[in-house]
Amino acid sequence: MAEYIESLQHLAEEFGRLEGVGRKSAMRMAFSVLELSEDEAAEFAQAVVDAKQKIHLCPICQNLTDRDVCSVCSDLGRDRSVICVVTDARTVLAMEKVREYRGTYHVLHGLISPMNGVTPEQLKIKELLERVSEGNVKEVIVATNPTVEGEATAMYLSKLLKPFEVKVTRLAYGVPVGADLEYADEVTLFRALEGRREV
Amino acid sequence: MAEYIESLQHLAEEFGRLEGVGRKSAMRMAFSVLELSEDEAAEFAQAVVDAKQKIHLCPICQNLTDRDVCSVCSDLGRDRSVICVVTDARTVLAMEKVREYRGTYHVLHGLISPMNGVTPEQLKIKELLERVSEGNVKEVIVATNPTVEGEATAMYLSKLLKPFEVKVTRLAYGVPVGADLEYADEVTLFRALEGRREV
Repeated sequence: MAEYIESLQHLAEEFGRLEGVGRKSAMRMAFSVLELSEDEAAEFAQAVVDAKQKIHLCPICQNLTDRDVCSVCSDLGRDRSVICVVTDARTVLAMEKVREYRGTYHVLHGLISPMNGVTPEQLKIKELLERVSEGNVKEVIVATNPTVEGEATAMYLSKLLKPFEVKVTRLAYGVPVGADLEYADEVTLFRALEGRREV
Repeated sequence: MAEYIESLQHLAEEFGRLEGVGRKSAMRMAFSVLELSEDEAAEFAQAVVDAKQKIHLCPICQNLTDRDVCSVCSDLGRDRSVICVVTDARTVLAMEKVREYRGTYHVLHGLISPMNGVTPEQLKIKELLERVSEGNVKEVIVATNPTVEGEATAMYLSKLLKPFEVKVTRLAYGVPVGADLEYADEVTLFRALEGRREV
């Protein structure tokens, strides 16, 4: 059999690098690019480069942003005395969709996981402690996933935060155990936020 | 709620343009791009542009190629007296995986579909008739999907090809009716190829 089109194969491999994209989906997307106009393809390519170049971490909450300080941290209407600690930027997106939470966030960029070699030092925990040590913080809501690693990280954080005399809470178990916060519906997330309890 | 990161949103929209990519998948892929290194992201972007710029239609069989003439049409070992007519380039990919077919292809780039406003003039039928009219073609295998539109297109082609006195065949119904050739397994495709019957 003759070799197939190299640049198409290469594009499919690039799609295959992305999370959750299998071999067949990658090839389907590569074919799909060929159906775009040349301008649309150029715009697509530019969007990939732009996103990577413009987006960095917010120096305060460590969430992804394309501004100096992210839109939540720079919003004067948000309550800075409440910090919601999340695993990743996707959970911020999910929480913001609830439209009921008016505090700020702190993104850990992972969970403590000795099995996968993730130690507390690799997470943005130091930055969280700095924020809390500056005072003015009344409550830290630990909104990690209700999984073994999420719970372990929550316990670890609650111990670290004890000296600062802040209220440390956890989302209520409205979220189904073992699930991923990213895929929770708005109502479930809202219930979980309302029923949060002190650790 | 404050606006979310614009360049990330834009990238997700770009992914959402691709066939079969929903809103959540598009956002997951956009986040996934941020986990690539800057070099990897640039390479990804380049692959999109390259594929679109380098790939065009083979002047003979109308399949996608990045050469002057595609790898099948330029392969001297392929039997030019047999043409397998397919709907799109993806089906060529599926057929080539069988590794049993030694003829050439002709890609229609669609199926006749009055419901969707696709007329025979929009397909590469003229180019097929030109190839057949040059003589030397003994058999045309119409390998369109076993759906209403696929069958209608096959009937239409068989009528057009009658004056040329070539054998017009259709893949055997080894392929499950209503399915998409792209996802057929190799053995099923091979059986369908072996049991092909004259229209």
